[in-house]
Parts: sequence; C-alpha cells; structure tokens
Amino acid sequence: MFEHAGVPAPAAALAADVLATADLRGIDSHGVARLGTYYDLLEAGEINARPRIRVLRETASTATVDGDNGLGLVVGPKANQIAMDKAKDAGSGWVSVSNTNHFGIAGYYPLRALERDLIGWAMTNSTKLVAPLWGAERMLGTNPLAIAFPGLEEPPIVIDLATPVVPLGKIEIALRKGEKIPLGWAIDADGRPTDDPQAVVDGGALLPLGSDRQHGGHKGYGLGLMVDVLCAVLSGANWGPFAPPFMLRQQKPARSVGRGIGHFFGALRIDGFIDPLEFKGQIDDLIRTFRKTRPAPGTSGPLIPGDPEREAERQRTRGGIPLLDPVVEDLRNLSRRTGVPLD
Amino acid sequence: MFEHAGVPAPAAALAADVLATADLRGIDSHGVARLGTYYDLLEAGEINARPRIRVLRETASTATVDGDNGLGLVVGPKANQIAMDKAKDAGSGWVSVSNTNHFGIAGYYPLRALERDLIGWAMTNSTKLVAPLWGAERMLGTNPLAIAFPGLEEPPIVIDLATPVVPLGKIEIALRKGEKIPLGWAIDADGRPTDDPQAVVDGGALLPLGSDRQHGGHKGYGLGLMVDVLCAVLSGANWGPFAPPFMLRQQKPARSVGRGIGHFFGALRIDGFIDPLEFKGQIDDLIRTFRKTRPAPGTSGPLIPGDPEREAERQRTRGGIPLLDPVVEDLRNLSRRTGVPLD
Repeated sequence: MFEHAGVPAPAAALAADVLATADLRGIDSHGVARLGTYYDLLEAGEINARPRIRVLRETASTATVDGDNGLGLVVGPKANQIAMDKAKDAGSGWVSVSNTNHFGIAGYYPLRALERDLIGWAMTNSTKLVAPLWGAERMLGTNPLAIAFPGLEEPPIVIDLATPVVPLGKIEIALRKGEKIPLGWAIDADGRPTDDPQAVVDGGALLPLGSDRQHGGHKGYGLGLMVDVLCAVLSGANWGPFAPPFMLRQQKPARSVGRGIGHFFGALRIDGFIDPLEFKGQIDDLIRTFRKTRPAPGTSGPLIPGDPEREAERQRTRGGIPLLDPVVEDLRNLSRRTGVPLD
Repeated sequence: MFEHAGVPAPAAALAADVLATADLRGIDSHGVARLGTYYDLLEAGEINARPRIRVLRETASTATVDGDNGLGLVVGPKANQIAMDKAKDAGSGWVSVSNTNHFGIAGYYPLRALERDLIGWAMTNSTKLVAPLWGAERMLGTNPLAIAFPGLEEPPIVIDLATPVVPLGKIEIALRKGEKIPLGWAIDADGRPTDDPQAVVDGGALLPLGSDRQHGGHKGYGLGLMVDVLCAVLSGANWGPFAPPFMLRQQKPARSVGRGIGHFFGALRIDGFIDPLEFKGQIDDLIRTFRKTRPAPGTSGPLIPGDPEREAERQRTRGGIPLLDPVVEDLRNLSRRTGVPLD
C-alpha cells in the first residue's frame, strides 16, 4: 500500500515493519489500523512519499535531521540508525529530527538498538491533546518516551510510556461503550474534571500523568514538556500546540513555528560504561529480584516493563494477529479504492 | 563543617554550594537541614572525606566514574563536570557514577550546564522508599531526574522531579500535624492504599507517580526503574532495594550488588543541533505561549517548570533564607559538638 502511494520499496518495507511490530506487540491502535490514515495523507500530498532526508548539523555524537516531510515510519528508523551509528564511533549518538510525521510506536526504536547492544531512547511530539497542569486547553501532544535495557537470560526491560494518564483511545472506547471515565483522566472544555468521555472529545483535554497537583500532575506536565523541547525546539520543528495534526480532517494549528513534528533518538554503547556481560547479568538479577516483590493484595505482583507486549508477541507469533472488524473493513475499502489486493 | 570533618577546602566549598543552592531555591529538605547527617556519616567513616575520584572506562562521549565513596555533593559536581567537558569535544557527554552518596538536589546539575550553554540532565538512585505498581514493599528510591533548557530573555525551564507521587517529607509533615494523607500517595505494610501517615512510616511505601493502574502508576514505576538502571546498573552501583541508606541509623540492605549508590549525568551542546540563539528564542516563545494558556477554574493558569524555585530564589536572595527552629537547633548542637562557630 505504501508502494502504491509512491513510497520506494525499501522505505515501504521499513514503514510496514514499524506497523507490523505494533500489531505483533499488541498495540493495535498503532498498527495497520492506521494504514488508511497514512495512505490518505500520502495521497493528498500532505506527506512526501520520496523525501530527501538530510543531516542539517552534526558533531561526533549529535545530529539534527530534516525529514523532508516524509513518513515518520521511514524518517524515524533512518534517524535512529544515525544515532546508533554515531554511538558506535563516539560512545553515544543523539539525533533530533524536524519536518517529520508520526513515527508509530516509540518502543520500536529502542528494540532496534537492543539488536546492536545499545541502550536506545526514542521520543516524539504530536498533535495537541493534553492540558498542562492548571490549564483548561490542549497544549501538548501525548509525547511518549521509550527506552530499553537488555538482559542476558531474561528478556529485555522495555519502558514505553506516553506522558498523559491515558491515551485518547481509552476515552473513545468509553464513548463507544456508553461508559463514564474515571476522574483524573481528563477535563472538559471549561477545564473542569470530568467523567464524561463526550466532554473530552468536545473540546476537553487529557490530563498529564499525576492528574492533579496533589497527585503530581506537575510532574507529568514537566515530562511532556521535556519531550516537546528535545523533539521539536531542538530540531526546529513545531512545538506545543502548533504540532500539525495526524489526520486530514483535523484542524490545522493557528500558526507554524517550525517544520512538521519532531522526534528525538538516543543510543548509548553499553561497553562505553561497563562490561556488557556484567551489565546484562545485573539486569537479569534485577528482573528476578523485582519479580519476587511481595504482591499487593489482589494482584499477582509487579510486572517488568515490556511484559504485556512480550506476552502479546508470543501469542500472536503463534496464533496470528486478530483484527477488529472495522479495521478489516477499512483495509478492504482501501484495497478496493487502490486495486492493491488484500490477502 | 565539611572541612572540620576532613574534606579538603575546595571540595568542602563545592558541597556547601550544593546545599546552599537548595536552600536558596526553597528546597529546604535538601539544604543545611541535612548538614548534620552528612557530618555524622563523614565522622563515622561511612563516607570518605578524601576520595580519589577515578574514570574507570570512557569513550569520546561517555564515561564511568568511581566516586571512591566520597560525598555525593563533591562526586556529583565533578562527574557533571566530566560530562560537560566531553560535550564540549564530542557534542554530548554522559557519565554514570558508582560508589557515591546522596548528591543534593538533582536540579543543581543542569543549572551548572546552563552556564555553559549546555542542556544538562541529572539523575540519582537512592535508598528504597517506593513500591513498584502492584508491589507491597519498598523496592526503589525516589530516583529523581532533572533537565534544564535556557531561554533568551525568559528565565530557563528547569524540570526537576522525583518519580513517586510525593516525597517522604510530605508524609512526615502530615504525621507531625496529625493529619491524614490523600489516597494515592502511599500504601501500608500489607500493600493496601492508606490515608494514615504512620502506616507509611511503619513499613509502608510511597507509590510511584500515577498512583494506581487506572491512573498510570505503571508509568511512574517505569520512570523510577529507568533512573535506577542508568544510575546504578550502568555504573556498577547498588540498584533497587540494595541502595545503601542515607542515615546512620537506617537499616543496611540484605545484600550488596555493587558499590554505593549511583548517579547519571548528561550534557548536550545546543549548537550541536541548532543555532543556540534560535533555540533560546523559541524557548522564549514557548514559555510565553504556555503562560497564555487558558487557566483551569480556580487557578491562575499553568506554571513553567522552575517558577516556584525561581520565585523562592528571588525572595531569599533579597530577604535571606528562613530556617526552621529544629534546623537551627541541630546546627547549634553541631557547632557545640565540633567547636566550629555558627555565625
């Protein structure tokens, strides 16, 4: 489908890999369910199918990349590659990217770094959805950050978190089911705490991790802002409320303060700090120690970050990836429109 | 007082500067209120007054530092210096530190980086106080992270946050006042949510940012774990529940898995990414844009991270630093014990 939209074959394969990884790891919201949106943006010329990705500025361990308004699913992996290559030479690599678009799941990128014995980081900013603490309007995207650490015998620790309490998807699910949402997730258009998912969609906003002042909402706001600056201000992209929308029908921001949205990638060579075998052995010990934590009542004890995605990957590698009917229907429609066979 | 305990004069001045910065910025819990604890540890030989701080391993942009069990208030600034020096040459610098002790406020370190036009990061692990989500016991320290971004005409954005919902100090204040604490802050010794501060002190634990699963407690836990691995596993320090205690009377962990506690410092050269004037101009624009956010009802609108500390610094630079009576009493006792005059 990407090739049909004019994306060269190797880049299309890269983009497909990012989406398939999301589906495989159980993050359905970021997988093929989004293919139609990407296709629409490519077809409308809102995303450049054949970008010339350029390094604008660099040092031994840093670079700024201009994604030439390409797919984030292609610009992201290429910029991550630059960070990893720099780490090989300089011990670490840090790449801030402007003029790019949504890059899929943040966790995809540190997983690539793991393959090269690197600690990888990834962040991205995105369309505004989240209010700063004490704000009554959307000013920040969900601005996720991800980082992964390899074990030796144990699977890696994969931390991948967005900076609001919940993603918009959870609000939409409640809306479809006709259910209320918990207080602490979101505010209405007047900035008041709400349990009504419709009020969130109608001009409300998500709350930053921590929800309110008493529970540390200023911290989630600070994290979202950190991601925004590293991804967008440092690269020359659009920050805060000016990040362009992901979908065609969404309203464009009032003004432009840069080029596209922004990402930030980091890679650290483990052997730049410590013997990698020692590091991985300690990670194994840490994982086993945390698994033995006395469980809170009514739970089976703490998980290790990455456990749920790994379990989904195990099940889906064996049994296939279940797709929701509306997703299948979207893909069928896309197939009919384009003549690209769905099989 | 540090000199009296055997710390060489330049190192003592550095340590005093870290404590004074905390007091000046209104973070009273991390200022001279802690001087007695540091002094006791030095006097008992639990902290090395004359450490030989060594680089164990390095690349162009990374290093591991062994703090030789010195004061974190001395090892921290020196390791931060190494990160900043590496950034000058390689574009970025990343230093993981083992065999060190508590380093004061995390925000101190990025403030030093700002003086050199660098984006600075600092993290540290610490004595266990926080339960992982779904755990019933203390497994992680409060593991703060700090980062700062310079403006041009506007003051810098200074993000400095610990990874639980609240610090232990807030529990202790409620205890002294005989007040209950809000649900979502902590659990009791059985791992149940509690509003009783005594139950937290008596073997309970702080909760990670997000509090519970529904409000993203797995995210705060993930952040705390990230800080722990970068500071302690990467440097060869004690991670998780094995981080040694801060005070003499506190119980030592069941086993040792490394040397002391750990820190992690980062420094990024802004001009390795973008023209620093352009960056700072955009930060000004961002700060002004966020200050104009429509306020939530009953608030005066969002703050910029660093505002409260800056306001304290402004007031205290002018009017002096108010000290609580018990802190003054502790300092008087210390003065009597040591013969070091208090004036």
